[in-house]
Amino acid sequence: MSYKNFPMVPRVIFGRGSFNQLSEIISPKRLNVNAPFIFLVDDVFKGNAWLTSRIPLAYDDKVIYISAKEEPKTSQVDSLVEDIILTSRQGTSGIIGIGGGTLLDLAKAVAIMLTNEGEAKDYQGWDLVKNPAIYHVGIPTISGTGAEVSRTTVLTGPEMKLGINSDFTPFDQVILDPELTKGVPKNQWFYTGMDCYIHCIESLTGSYLNSFSQSYGDISLQLCKEIFLGDMSETEAQDKLMMASWHGGMSIAYSQVGVAHAMSYGLSYLLGIKHGIGNCIVFDHLEEFYPEGVALFKTMKKKHHIELPKGICANLDYSEFDVMINISLSLEPLWENALGKNWKKTITREKLKHLYQKM
Amino acid sequence: MSYKNFPMVPRVIFGRGSFNQLSEIISPKRLNVNAPFIFLVDDVFKGNAWLTSRIPLAYDDKVIYISAKEEPKTSQVDSLVEDIILTSRQGTSGIIGIGGGTLLDLAKAVAIMLTNEGEAKDYQGWDLVKNPAIYHVGIPTISGTGAEVSRTTVLTGPEMKLGINSDFTPFDQVILDPELTKGVPKNQWFYTGMDCYIHCIESLTGSYLNSFSQSYGDISLQLCKEIFLGDMSETEAQDKLMMASWHGGMSIAYSQVGVAHAMSYGLSYLLGIKHGIGNCIVFDHLEEFYPEGVALFKTMKKKHHIELPKGICANLDYSEFDVMINISLSLEPLWENALGKNWKKTITREKLKHLYQKM
Repeated sequence: MSYKNFPMVPRVIFGRGSFNQLSEIISPKRLNVNAPFIFLVDDVFKGNAWLTSRIPLAYDDKVIYISAKEEPKTSQVDSLVEDIILTSRQGTSGIIGIGGGTLLDLAKAVAIMLTNEGEAKDYQGWDLVKNPAIYHVGIPTISGTGAEVSRTTVLTGPEMKLGINSDFTPFDQVILDPELTKGVPKNQWFYTGMDCYIHCIESLTGSYLNSFSQSYGDISLQLCKEIFLGDMSETEAQDKLMMASWHGGMSIAYSQVGVAHAMSYGLSYLLGIKHGIGNCIVFDHLEEFYPEGVALFKTMKKKHHIELPKGICANLDYSEFDVMINISLSLEPLWENALGKNWKKTITREKLKHLYQKM
Repeated sequence: MSYKNFPMVPRVIFGRGSFNQLSEIISPKRLNVNAPFIFLVDDVFKGNAWLTSRIPLAYDDKVIYISAKEEPKTSQVDSLVEDIILTSRQGTSGIIGIGGGTLLDLAKAVAIMLTNEGEAKDYQGWDLVKNPAIYHVGIPTISGTGAEVSRTTVLTGPEMKLGINSDFTPFDQVILDPELTKGVPKNQWFYTGMDCYIHCIESLTGSYLNSFSQSYGDISLQLCKEIFLGDMSETEAQDKLMMASWHGGMSIAYSQVGVAHAMSYGLSYLLGIKHGIGNCIVFDHLEEFYPEGVALFKTMKKKHHIELPKGICANLDYSEFDVMINISLSLEPLWENALGKNWKKTITREKLKHLYQKM
């Protein structure tokens, strides 16, 4: 038996207002005055001086605003990399991602593709990256995805939605400043928080679990329960959800996600449904696989008055179901983690179609 | 306000038998065939082929067996460094520490002193180390100290017992193989496990605490309760105590230890009492500061039939108490964490003497 030698984020700073330390953190990493830092920033912050005025720009540093309305794409990574190479002739000092899972995943993928030949789609899978990425920093502004700590960057490619899983993917530095999450709209807060909750349920009930992953999953799940079912101040909830996301991401180290993620990847690929809400839509129908987890999810949904979209698969035709089912079934490690080595006995194409039809 | 940018161990592997992967992990780190890896190994393993036959020696690699009967000393670090430099004329590829807190702290200190001038005692304190350490790997064989994940290495010097706290202190790689802890004697298992439990109590009740450190402390404390008060298989207890130690060490990131550690440093310095048992002896008398924590400690002690030594300070004279009190009072961050900025109002020399006299 061989165990994974897991890469952890080597530097982390936590605290309300720690974003102000970005300049002192990245300055020593500047290669030369002609090698800029590139800041990839969620475009919801465009014009929001409270945040943008604190981005420490110097020399040729550049901010690129990116919409997180759609899931990140391999083609988007390729075109960002091309732009950056063209405008930074003496190299790039680093990539700093500021935003949610979409921006963080783009930052990780761009940092990898700046030092690896070919196209981003060539690296979707496990351990295909050859060269270390350039210095990259992750600064989450919404909590739940675990993208700030994971060794993957999930991208939609021409053929599949799949992560670039590699030892070079994790950030070199993460800044956890819970204050940055204060403007997140309620629905998005819930969907993204539930991404973390669902991670935990899938990880903790999975067959891959060991004591390492369990300990991270347990604390993350406990925090999710306190945040979404308990009673605490807004700032405390922001602090704790940021930690829940962090530990939830770590809990995947020796585990995997499961049925909800496998199915929601299909929804994202075909219908462009964002990851957080997609997971919620799917998880709501998975009592059969996660009875306790789904019951608690419904309680949380009710407490926070969340109405999930319905009938999103109502008008799909036969071939469209096929596309979703193909994407979903291709994620074998997720199914194996959820249901064991004989998962194919339980999960048939008909079964998946039946589940999708309810959504 | 400025927050600490915390260095985390960048690589960790967890699993029963993961020690077998040591060779594949360190091989790529060899600088050249004349630059050996030096293995610092607890001498309880001398002649224990189950472990030693799996130490992957090649070229000029060397095993140095070290007794952990005494706390590690700065002079011991200096003499190890001198020996290693004399016998490794083309540099050293790395230091691998295999053992408990003593061996892990020695490995960290030696790795630092191989690239920093002067003597180890010059670096006791906070952030005095100038140059990155050489590659160093930590492999705990007993769980509880948190030395495998911390940014300190606690050494007894000519003038004080104090850690080399620096960003270069943490291991580059940690191997968490719970199977390596199977031969630990019962008493030592308890004392070292209680080091972790006491960390958690001191961290969680301290004034420095934030949500980052709290989340690690909570899971570690929860695991300690399950292990020392619950009922589980021996292998599960080994796995979980290794994780409790890991998270307990992390919980100090934005926190500190407290009264028990401040006072047990005095006992260690004067009487050479080992850290784990020293903490237990002190903590047993700290109801005043940690009422719930001490009550639970007494329950654990009873459940595991542990008898602590008594009267260890009975025959000390005035000047000896003074030495212990001086050492203890010098650890200001620990007292401030435990009792707040005005700790000097509560903690007088008389008060400390009175407490020591009970031990």
